[in-house]
Amino acid sequence: MRIFYVSELGAQGIVKLLRRAAEHVEDHIALTVGEIVADVMAGGDEALCRHTLLHDGCELDPSTIEATAGELASAAAEVSPADTEILAIAARRIEKYHQKQLLALRNEDWHYHEGEGIRLGQLIRPLKRVGLYAPGGRAAYPSSVLMAAIPARVAGVSEVFLVSPLRGGRLNPLVALAARISGINRVFKIGGAQAVAALAYGTETIPPVDKIVGPGNAYVTAAKKRVYGQVAIDMIAGPSEILIIADRNSDPALVAADLLGQAEHDEMACAILVTPDASLAARVKEEIDIQISGLPRHDIARRALEDHGAIVISQNIDEAFELANLYGPEHLEIMLPQPEAWLKKVENAGCVFLGESTPETIGDYMAGSNHILPTGGTARFSSPLGVYDFIKRTSVVCFSPEDLAAFGTAAARFARLEGLDGHARSINLRVERNAASGLSAKPSNKS
Amino acid sequence: MRIFYVSELGAQGIVKLLRRAAEHVEDHIALTVGEIVADVMAGGDEALCRHTLLHDGCELDPSTIEATAGELASAAAEVSPADTEILAIAARRIEKYHQKQLLALRNEDWHYHEGEGIRLGQLIRPLKRVGLYAPGGRAAYPSSVLMAAIPARVAGVSEVFLVSPLRGGRLNPLVALAARISGINRVFKIGGAQAVAALAYGTETIPPVDKIVGPGNAYVTAAKKRVYGQVAIDMIAGPSEILIIADRNSDPALVAADLLGQAEHDEMACAILVTPDASLAARVKEEIDIQISGLPRHDIARRALEDHGAIVISQNIDEAFELANLYGPEHLEIMLPQPEAWLKKVENAGCVFLGESTPETIGDYMAGSNHILPTGGTARFSSPLGVYDFIKRTSVVCFSPEDLAAFGTAAARFARLEGLDGHARSINLRVERNAASGLSAKPSNKS
Repeated sequence: MRIFYVSELGAQGIVKLLRRAAEHVEDHIALTVGEIVADVMAGGDEALCRHTLLHDGCELDPSTIEATAGELASAAAEVSPADTEILAIAARRIEKYHQKQLLALRNEDWHYHEGEGIRLGQLIRPLKRVGLYAPGGRAAYPSSVLMAAIPARVAGVSEVFLVSPLRGGRLNPLVALAARISGINRVFKIGGAQAVAALAYGTETIPPVDKIVGPGNAYVTAAKKRVYGQVAIDMIAGPSEILIIADRNSDPALVAADLLGQAEHDEMACAILVTPDASLAARVKEEIDIQISGLPRHDIARRALEDHGAIVISQNIDEAFELANLYGPEHLEIMLPQPEAWLKKVENAGCVFLGESTPETIGDYMAGSNHILPTGGTARFSSPLGVYDFIKRTSVVCFSPEDLAAFGTAAARFARLEGLDGHARSINLRVERNAASGLSAKPSNKS
Repeated sequence: MRIFYVSELGAQGIVKLLRRAAEHVEDHIALTVGEIVADVMAGGDEALCRHTLLHDGCELDPSTIEATAGELASAAAEVSPADTEILAIAARRIEKYHQKQLLALRNEDWHYHEGEGIRLGQLIRPLKRVGLYAPGGRAAYPSSVLMAAIPARVAGVSEVFLVSPLRGGRLNPLVALAARISGINRVFKIGGAQAVAALAYGTETIPPVDKIVGPGNAYVTAAKKRVYGQVAIDMIAGPSEILIIADRNSDPALVAADLLGQAEHDEMACAILVTPDASLAARVKEEIDIQISGLPRHDIARRALEDHGAIVISQNIDEAFELANLYGPEHLEIMLPQPEAWLKKVENAGCVFLGESTPETIGDYMAGSNHILPTGGTARFSSPLGVYDFIKRTSVVCFSPEDLAAFGTAAARFARLEGLDGHARSINLRVERNAASGLSAKPSNKS
């Protein structure tokens, strides 16, 4: 765990040192993915099954690509009733939060009039068909299925598909359960770049979707980037991150536990403490050494902390927030007394956790807010996954003959300034005809 | 102009025939762009100036990359007072529309409480710094500068930059004027992939931005796709498109004029009429032949209509809308009596123009709605450029000790189901400490 002093390096300097593991997709991955995508585009189901055998070691044929209701039910039935209830509670809380989010968004068509003739506004519509990606193997996160599917359903998406690769020929029971609880319409037993290609372009079995959501490995990420434009994607997800702001009032054992919780994700995870209190920093370091050996994933956590962990000593709390905003963490824990008072300082973060009784883990599972969050500093420009990711807008314009007469001359001149005479004519022809038939009574030029 | 019958081919079949010019970036463009981006990332201003000389034929040095206020003012002064006023009117109307859009969005922080202890919600913040791309040569569209800059400013973006390449060593006067009118903060005299790279990664002279917006040529598009993830981008823009729905009441001269207005954009532009009236179809075809010879850009329009134009005869109006929704046009003109009554049929379109007095051109310049619209069928999942493109959200979670006790056990169990013991411990440690200090009075498990 490295220790940096803002007084020595400056906030900008430290954020440069904290640079995340580069998320540039390796060229050879991009090349392989390009070939897989082209193959599935051209070959449909046959190519999809071929690549599934090649990369996942699973034999499928077009008739077995889709999981039947029976398969899903029997996989889900392997989860105990108590655990099933935990997923159901989480799903209800996620649904409640995203219903509130939809209300806050004022998700309805809007328009305004100018005088009698002009009407301007927008229609708001849900996407029609969305595909979710869920890893099927060791890194299977059923919570992410809930987090992606439920906002889509709340937004009104009518067809939500899940793709998830088999592991040892079997569906992950927790993933199957999450699919059932969150109301997913169809499940396909495929993964990797070939699954992303199938969702983007469609095959004989799989209808093409409008958006692909959910994290996967480097191949899945490269494939999402490749098909971006053909379909929408949620984000280019990087390693998970936490930045904790704490002071001398904070409990070092809790700070250490939260840094370790982040570090156990994978070896590229980033766990950072920023504090003006050098003595807290020292005690957190000790606590990490005590707690880490008890973790089943201690090797991963140790490597992550060595490579991407840091304790930063700031001169005061304001400077800690300055650094946090420059870094733009996925998760920001404010472990200070009266944490709400500091909220106004937050500019860039995926999700903020207020106070010592709000560990990041509660947000991962039970708060109801979304845990699919911008990483890698992209909180500068992107948002947690939400209902707004599953709606789109269409503008509406309506002019009367009088209003066209009033604004048409200026519009036609503007078109000519850009060299578009045909544009100008489509207006002028109307204005002339309307004038001839007495349809444009008002003075014909407001410009 | 090809003529298709829905009764023969079906709506799906025709939409396949209407496939747009493939927008796949050529591999050699992607390779060149990859090298330029890497070069500018590593070399900063020096590399930026080198590529500007190489590709734009303009000599710049780090001190002249940015346009001075004097340069901008003198370029803008070349535009006549009457034309200056036209741009100012357009800017005011765009501002008004996007102010209304911001209101409709209910652009404010929101939260809700559960009992005493739980608070959940989101902060909403503008992006801090945005870069706009404007072509500088023949295809210079000052209207697009207004369309991109004004929503950013209305959303609250504090720094809006413009990049636009010089042509013959000079700034385009209309682009300079649009930059001044729309309140752009800084203008850089660069273009191409090197400008996109400079905006994404920053150089000594140019601070890195959070989002890059605005259309450019194939190199600019490839570069935007390349830096996507490092920064946000607006969209992958393709050729412009119009789909007109008309019937026997429609004026064939106006339909023809609007198809030609679209076709003059470039040789890949798509102009499509869908009508149940075969006699209107024939008369529109005649009118196109009459009008096209009078267009300065008739060669471009002719080629576009031959390659991408079509008249589709549907069996009725419902079928025309079915086809329009499958196609998802950038511009949709409803040239029918009582056009508002058909609005409920619209699912996928960038902007809808209602009735014969609302030609697409009025939306390009004077309506106030945005003309940067989804193309290539991406209206299935994306929206016109708007204030929502320039804001982002941060989630906020706050739990009391009692609430953590109530939901913590379930959250910790969920974490263990996903193999994340460290996550579980960060909760359990708190629950134990709170219980020991009497902080969690309520029953400790609601699951």
